[in-house]
Amino acid sequence: MQALESSRRNFIKAGLAAIGALSAGGVTAQGKVNHKFDKIVDVIVVGSGFAGLAAALEAAEKGASVLLLEKMPVFGGNSAINGGAFAVAGSPLQEKEGIKDSPELMLQDMIKSGRGLSHVDLLKNIVYGTRPAFDFTVKYGVKYKPFVQHFGGHSVPRIMQTVESTGGGITRPLVEAARKQGVDLHTSAAMEDFIRDENGRVIGLVVREKFNFLQKDSGLVLNYGARKGIVIASGGFSQNVQFRKAIDPSLDEKLESTNHPGATGECLMAMLALGAMPIQLDQIQLGPWSSPDERGFGLVSQFNTIAGFPKGIMVDCRTGRRFVDELADRKARSDAILNQIDENGKPVYPICFVDSEGVKLAQTLKNGLKYGVIRKFDTLEELAKAYGIPTDNLIKQVNEFNEYVRNGKDEQFNRPLALAVEITKAPFYAARVWPKVHYCMGSVAINNRAQVLNVRDLKPIPGLYAAGEVTGGTHGASRLGGCAIADGLVTGRTAGAQVAAEPSQNLS
Amino acid sequence: MQALESSRRNFIKAGLAAIGALSAGGVTAQGKVNHKFDKIVDVIVVGSGFAGLAAALEAAEKGASVLLLEKMPVFGGNSAINGGAFAVAGSPLQEKEGIKDSPELMLQDMIKSGRGLSHVDLLKNIVYGTRPAFDFTVKYGVKYKPFVQHFGGHSVPRIMQTVESTGGGITRPLVEAARKQGVDLHTSAAMEDFIRDENGRVIGLVVREKFNFLQKDSGLVLNYGARKGIVIASGGFSQNVQFRKAIDPSLDEKLESTNHPGATGECLMAMLALGAMPIQLDQIQLGPWSSPDERGFGLVSQFNTIAGFPKGIMVDCRTGRRFVDELADRKARSDAILNQIDENGKPVYPICFVDSEGVKLAQTLKNGLKYGVIRKFDTLEELAKAYGIPTDNLIKQVNEFNEYVRNGKDEQFNRPLALAVEITKAPFYAARVWPKVHYCMGSVAINNRAQVLNVRDLKPIPGLYAAGEVTGGTHGASRLGGCAIADGLVTGRTAGAQVAAEPSQNLS
Repeated sequence: MQALESSRRNFIKAGLAAIGALSAGGVTAQGKVNHKFDKIVDVIVVGSGFAGLAAALEAAEKGASVLLLEKMPVFGGNSAINGGAFAVAGSPLQEKEGIKDSPELMLQDMIKSGRGLSHVDLLKNIVYGTRPAFDFTVKYGVKYKPFVQHFGGHSVPRIMQTVESTGGGITRPLVEAARKQGVDLHTSAAMEDFIRDENGRVIGLVVREKFNFLQKDSGLVLNYGARKGIVIASGGFSQNVQFRKAIDPSLDEKLESTNHPGATGECLMAMLALGAMPIQLDQIQLGPWSSPDERGFGLVSQFNTIAGFPKGIMVDCRTGRRFVDELADRKARSDAILNQIDENGKPVYPICFVDSEGVKLAQTLKNGLKYGVIRKFDTLEELAKAYGIPTDNLIKQVNEFNEYVRNGKDEQFNRPLALAVEITKAPFYAARVWPKVHYCMGSVAINNRAQVLNVRDLKPIPGLYAAGEVTGGTHGASRLGGCAIADGLVTGRTAGAQVAAEPSQNLS
Repeated sequence: MQALESSRRNFIKAGLAAIGALSAGGVTAQGKVNHKFDKIVDVIVVGSGFAGLAAALEAAEKGASVLLLEKMPVFGGNSAINGGAFAVAGSPLQEKEGIKDSPELMLQDMIKSGRGLSHVDLLKNIVYGTRPAFDFTVKYGVKYKPFVQHFGGHSVPRIMQTVESTGGGITRPLVEAARKQGVDLHTSAAMEDFIRDENGRVIGLVVREKFNFLQKDSGLVLNYGARKGIVIASGGFSQNVQFRKAIDPSLDEKLESTNHPGATGECLMAMLALGAMPIQLDQIQLGPWSSPDERGFGLVSQFNTIAGFPKGIMVDCRTGRRFVDELADRKARSDAILNQIDENGKPVYPICFVDSEGVKLAQTLKNGLKYGVIRKFDTLEELAKAYGIPTDNLIKQVNEFNEYVRNGKDEQFNRPLALAVEITKAPFYAARVWPKVHYCMGSVAINNRAQVLNVRDLKPIPGLYAAGEVTGGTHGASRLGGCAIADGLVTGRTAGAQVAAEPSQNLS
């Protein structure tokens, strides 16, 4: 490079320039200024969801000293508030219930859902890793419900769900396990930028400790070094309206998100500014099961996934007719629901309902009824009247559907009916449905080893790993339900094992 | 920043680090090392297609000294080999022919084609700029055919086409005009990286002169400074199979591209590595009018756009039936054609054909017949036999279509029939059809002033402009035909005018 021919004086100026680049939001390229690190460990993990905790634990199990940074005041990120549903290909409970499943079958389901955009090598890593990751969580004390569920887009029931019905049922035990393994866990600690050495290797982070996520420049700026590498597991950007709207103008303020307020993507942006390869950033998933009658993920989402969709039906209020396979993948369902608009483009919220037999496993029913977001009806006629559905049409639709259940074949939408029940037993339970921004399929590109790729040559950026939702291209156009936990835990474990096996850099 | 507290010795090390970052593909941050610039001008433009030439001319007209760099051995880039079709809302010829059109009507067509992903503010800039850009080309000697054409997805005929039937009919006169305006034009000159000052402003480029595009490290490395700014107009990456496949695995080696071999996206990658906001990179357009019987854009593409699609019909060989609106937007048509596969997933190439009346304006007919990629038949029966189409079905389909033309309404696909003719007069002309990778809708984000936006805050990167295909998000999921020239010329002129109005930086 021409600059190598420059004089020593120019090196000084170049140094000033590098600092200038930092203040302008560029890459921190600080070189061997090791004495300036306020702390040095083997591995730094950013984020404390499924992926971050799995990476930290895996690296610590392999003997690395690990520092885990969480920008929010509590651990768990968005994982802690997700539904705790984990797609496992070949779980003990599937075996017990005689459900024939395999990683290859799960792979085919995920490929179909990805609509040609998914990266099969990355999917393979995940599907084959689900059973080991499941055992990994059980080893650390995670408890699952004693039945397997059937989520949309999966060809067989393969969803294991935590007894708590939230991802917190996984993140809490993993936080405890990480502590026991000696991981140094910091809340309110936000990464601000990367530190690289003279070869471009990522060797540390500029971090704000005592960070208040409502105030971007808050906290104390420190430099942390990582001898082996960094794992970014910072999740998605569903709550960053400005960023998601720049990417897809249709996802503006009018659409809510199911995510926690910290899902704002700063670490993704820092990786992109470092030269990481962006991939399919505009593939953003809407959750099809949420309700316009409550904020965030809410209570209806789980009512629908566990009862309404697999055991009941969803109808257009104007016609009383079903309009989509209630177990299609999320994109197909969200697209179909978003088409339920009147002549002025205003939403006509569809109704999803189930009978008293189908509702049995829905744990959020009680609170849903209490807050009025789920409603109870003694007859289908009352239900129809309450939502302005033509009664005769609705009864006809229910009778048709019940016949499909008896015959084992959905003549309308070819929905898998493994878990379906006839809608006959009063009372009936119903909720209004409208999609919310839920998951970012796109982000930075990684390889099978969870190494982040450089945009200029698609080779790994030395020292930089990523896992979970902050990695992109795996799922393509639509991620299947239960596969966020699968992705987070498996790629987190991959990243943790890989980074722990890196040679130690001499930072002192 | 913490590094400001460092000693002079650390600045030296940071300088070395910055150089290290460069060699690893990072951002060149060279600061005020002005005496190292081998050349300093007001404005540097990278790329010599529609956008680059328009930017260079506009900046030069406004009094700026301009250097234009083209990495290939000839000027014009992919623009020179495109079809020379320019969508103009409100052209003199439309007025003469009584075709009612307006920028707002064109805007609505483009919004529809974008499927919710287009950025309306950027589209507005383009549609209102088409007539002024058209006049700009006429002023510099571009000649257009004396009739208006109707391309897919446009609600009225609004395509002006150069008499040469190629974009070279525009780029050649603009190159001459740029020379006359004093623009310093270099071929075989490739930009390698950006040079920024201490505030992060882009002030120059690392350039390889005497570059051989087949050898990445060829040529002489020089540093060029730009007092006012840089305009990147380097086009798309359709020919970079590794990069496009990383983004969308379905666009692999099996799909050809219509583009010139230089459409490989290095400047895009350099902007992304600099921290530019990526936008919709996976929105990649396939051209629906190309032929599997020839390489590249070929002769059939123009036969189809000028004759086969607006005046003939396209049928499934197995059924003799039409299967898509031949004037739908490119995405709808490409998706429909790619669905024409047999049970093993192999292409069943559809046939597009037209009669001797409809073919009249197809200039590539003669060479198409000569090279056997277009075939001539005395009867429809012979045509059917040659391609294995059930004859009766084909005759029936033609008769139905002819009735639609007589009645002015396409009962099958609601295609606009303004330019359609009854298919009756022998001989008939036919070609096989299969899509090719054609245009990158996604790239880096710009604002209305053609300023490139930073990924971390969506604010402009000082000194950096972009125009044409290397900008993303304008067209969304599908760009309409004739709108590449519109986009290139209009955003190029915007970038040229804006950069010329920047205050001059003191680089000496």
